[in-house]
Amino acid sequence: VKLRIAEEEYRSRIERVRQRLDERGADRLVLFSAKRIAWLCGYHLLATERPVALIVDKNRASAFVPRLELEAAQSQPLIDEVHHYFEYPGAEPPLKLLANLLRGAKRIIADSDGYPGLWGYEGPRLSELVKAEVKVEPKLIDDLWLVKSPGEIALIRESAKWGALAHRRLQELVRVGMSEIELGLRASYEASKEMLAALGPEYGGHMRGGFPAEAGLISGERTALPHAMSLNRKIQPGDLLITGASADIWGYTSELERTMIVGEPTSEQRRFFEIMLEAQQLGIDRSGPGVPLAEVDRAVHDFLVAQGMEKFLRHHTGHHLGFAPHEPPFIDQNSQGEMQPGQVFSIEPGIYIPGHGGYRHSDTILITEDGVEVLTAYPRDLASLIV
Amino acid sequence: VKLRIAEEEYRSRIERVRQRLDERGADRLVLFSAKRIAWLCGYHLLATERPVALIVDKNRASAFVPRLELEAAQSQPLIDEVHHYFEYPGAEPPLKLLANLLRGAKRIIADSDGYPGLWGYEGPRLSELVKAEVKVEPKLIDDLWLVKSPGEIALIRESAKWGALAHRRLQELVRVGMSEIELGLRASYEASKEMLAALGPEYGGHMRGGFPAEAGLISGERTALPHAMSLNRKIQPGDLLITGASADIWGYTSELERTMIVGEPTSEQRRFFEIMLEAQQLGIDRSGPGVPLAEVDRAVHDFLVAQGMEKFLRHHTGHHLGFAPHEPPFIDQNSQGEMQPGQVFSIEPGIYIPGHGGYRHSDTILITEDGVEVLTAYPRDLASLIV
Repeated sequence: VKLRIAEEEYRSRIERVRQRLDERGADRLVLFSAKRIAWLCGYHLLATERPVALIVDKNRASAFVPRLELEAAQSQPLIDEVHHYFEYPGAEPPLKLLANLLRGAKRIIADSDGYPGLWGYEGPRLSELVKAEVKVEPKLIDDLWLVKSPGEIALIRESAKWGALAHRRLQELVRVGMSEIELGLRASYEASKEMLAALGPEYGGHMRGGFPAEAGLISGERTALPHAMSLNRKIQPGDLLITGASADIWGYTSELERTMIVGEPTSEQRRFFEIMLEAQQLGIDRSGPGVPLAEVDRAVHDFLVAQGMEKFLRHHTGHHLGFAPHEPPFIDQNSQGEMQPGQVFSIEPGIYIPGHGGYRHSDTILITEDGVEVLTAYPRDLASLIV
Repeated sequence: VKLRIAEEEYRSRIERVRQRLDERGADRLVLFSAKRIAWLCGYHLLATERPVALIVDKNRASAFVPRLELEAAQSQPLIDEVHHYFEYPGAEPPLKLLANLLRGAKRIIADSDGYPGLWGYEGPRLSELVKAEVKVEPKLIDDLWLVKSPGEIALIRESAKWGALAHRRLQELVRVGMSEIELGLRASYEASKEMLAALGPEYGGHMRGGFPAEAGLISGERTALPHAMSLNRKIQPGDLLITGASADIWGYTSELERTMIVGEPTSEQRRFFEIMLEAQQLGIDRSGPGVPLAEVDRAVHDFLVAQGMEKFLRHHTGHHLGFAPHEPPFIDQNSQGEMQPGQVFSIEPGIYIPGHGGYRHSDTILITEDGVEVLTAYPRDLASLIV
């Protein structure tokens, strides 16, 4: 697997941006978000209080960076020129220098009106500093990652592969008496080591801390809280576990979650588990190209209501993902639009019983020309998930 | 060590906020940032595309959350009431429901004009939905964390202690042939295990993935890039290493960085190291209560220029920190203001020689009534840092 987006794909992204600027009668794009800059040209930088920007015009992609990013910016193959200031706060606001670079522009599209207030950054709006009209339209970029390219899908697929490995290690390690955080650390560490050994020296250039591959869990009654965070709580016999696993491949991601049970399930646990599993299977079966998002969520919701689960519902069926952990659109009864080939969704209906616990699997699926492909290859049946 | 901010401290924070609202003739505070909500009332939640808000008025602190956060919000001792909506996007924009809760308000101070565009969230501005005047003033909160309380300093001190342990493990593990990421993973894993064993079941309630204690490094010529990210590159004999270590104590943090050398240093390496060390010592010595921030940076800068290092400078001397990795103010020649007792700064002048490598230590210091205290206890001399 080639673990990077190819240069030609970045070139084609920049060309699509130029076309979109043209359609809007705009002559400059200004991006302040490090995530969007990374997506557009492959330059992964650490966003801090020091403002950065990428300017795209008809002929060039130019970076505007603090001195400490200069060499890194200059080494980017897709960036044609680099302008820099020494430091923030500096003798004058860095954005004034950025505004100088935008002289002559008539209509600017920006992802925000000035650099966001990260880590205490303060500064003027871009629209105060330039003569050009400034239109804030983050979706000029974000719309372009709503459908994934083959190059992107390859990285998401790779993420799903290592996420499944991390989950396998987690499942092997679970023992009564180990704590949630300890299990997550150990499984993530083991899986990351294996992943690094396999992927070689090219991997990881955008990482600063954290795990390349990661798996973790919450346990016991707190699984009834969909977004509970891990504690140093020790696993008990009879616990429900809800896990999560993923891997980071140059910013691309996937989502794999499983409900597991410690020891022989009770009949109540079996019943809830089977209802959840059936709901998830329904969500996967109903998905496909041209299917309205709302229809998938409604089918799952109606099934769960018919099973008497209405009071245990806490969220919709799933969300798009791939370059962020969640991306629009959402598989929600109130969403507009249809699933498209190249889109990547989580399918993760859950049921949450206060004082008892929660049940949720999440799988990452790819919408193909003629159906769906589950990217997260990991058993979903109860027998495989008793630990 | 009590590893949490005490309830009475949260109560006093909320009282200070009420006082500040009063001074501004405002009758509501609306916070959308999960970080600010956590700081104000201790409710740590996972921010997603589902909008959340904390509303503070004269009598109550009210949370506005999606259904999946309801029980977690209700269990918060500092939150008096909880309102919720089912799901985003939902049948109508969640912020319309929030606006209903703000009926009767005359003047609202908010940290942003609506929920930020996280993970693809889109929605109306708050100011479009309410009759009240909306003033955006994130600093109403952020100003309150510019000087740390004794309770906060205790957590930052605890962070520094475990950061130093993680760095010790990193230094013990470094071997020629191990990769940057591998070393970081191993050291962070070992240190986190020790930290979890010591801190017990109460630790970790705001964590989702990642390491409680963390250490990592970059190596070789890439140390000349201050914000280079770790690769799977293997350590070589003669390498310069620049490390970083910290630990997360309920959102509080510290910063410890060291320059290390693999094997016997060359005379050139010794010379650069000693200049860097002298500059850092100067930064520490010059710091103290009542000292202008600009003066500290100017002294360090002038010293480095006098040593012939001007062309190797890439950034200022340091920054405030504690509840975020960087916070204002900055130790910069262009900063206004003076250091105050209770402030916590990094002192980290660096020199960066293209094609050779970089030199930077960072320590976290506390400004006291009569001087400074270095919170990051770790050797800084060359002999201790040869590996």
